[in-house]
Amino acid sequence: MSNVVYIATSLDGFIADRDGGLDWLHSVPNPQGDDLGFAAFLAGIDALLMGRNTYQSILDFNLDLPSQWPYPKPVYVVGSSPITIPDALEGKVFALAPAEPAEMMATLAQMGHRHLYLDGGNTIQRFMAQGLVDELIISQIPVVLGGGVPLFGALPTMQSYELVSSEVMLGAMVKSHYRRIR
Amino acid sequence: MSNVVYIATSLDGFIADRDGGLDWLHSVPNPQGDDLGFAAFLAGIDALLMGRNTYQSILDFNLDLPSQWPYPKPVYVVGSSPITIPDALEGKVFALAPAEPAEMMATLAQMGHRHLYLDGGNTIQRFMAQGLVDELIISQIPVVLGGGVPLFGALPTMQSYELVSSEVMLGAMVKSHYRRIR
Repeated sequence: MSNVVYIATSLDGFIADRDGGLDWLHSVPNPQGDDLGFAAFLAGIDALLMGRNTYQSILDFNLDLPSQWPYPKPVYVVGSSPITIPDALEGKVFALAPAEPAEMMATLAQMGHRHLYLDGGNTIQRFMAQGLVDELIISQIPVVLGGGVPLFGALPTMQSYELVSSEVMLGAMVKSHYRRIR
Repeated sequence: MSNVVYIATSLDGFIADRDGGLDWLHSVPNPQGDDLGFAAFLAGIDALLMGRNTYQSILDFNLDLPSQWPYPKPVYVVGSSPITIPDALEGKVFALAPAEPAEMMATLAQMGHRHLYLDGGNTIQRFMAQGLVDELIISQIPVVLGGGVPLFGALPTMQSYELVSSEVMLGAMVKSHYRRIR
């Protein structure tokens, strides 16, 4: 089992700006549309787990579905109220009842999903707080937002990681991969 | 004129832990005592500007003074109450009356100090908020503290930077150098 966070942040650690906006993510020019290693990363995970806010923000991109849906693996969306799944995402997106992180992991493991990609601030913070995040892959965008939705939250104790790799992408972003030391 | 921040942070952006502690800075083994480029950086600045808390935390290391004092350039300590300067630091450390960042810069420029190294959370945040930081050199230590003294504070507007360089130090820390785009 492993739970991996793969996310972009501002230099001051935000994953969305004060209005929840993500325009700043595109402040680094990417004329060739390089996927920055995303497909290779997705190949190594079994499923995604995200909160409904994150899911909604992806739907808000108004992608042409299902062709532009970015995830070739099943996406589990956690939310206490009913989650609308467009017909075009039938069989790709599933609602998951909210539960403790370990319980959700057990549910997904029963379906054969052992390597999870965690996305969304709340989901990531809940797993981090329980010590259930194994890897962090963080791409830092060279902007300081000065406020917004933080990636990290409070923790009961410090967590230590080892650096697996770090690379510069598009001459501007620093993508660093960390693995938890337990 | 240029104002540079050179600092280490946790992955969650703290420069000191909840108790103001800095022990986590030493979580990366450095058996050869590599200075990690610090001397080369200091050679390019004229003076340091820091708040009294930061100054006090350096004194609290109980260094053998003046031999172990880490700064070959004049250090200006900003504080509203009188600042104690040990005899051993006479001619190396100077008290500076609190004023607006631009005013302190003007005072130091009159003394010939045009390239400043800003240190300490309050000092850095005040200069950042006024848009007066030109370069950020941030070394990320692979720990998540979960709370503490943050490097960055609120800003009125987003700031954009270009990546000058990024390197892995001691196989564990990622040091990235950013220059403000105005």
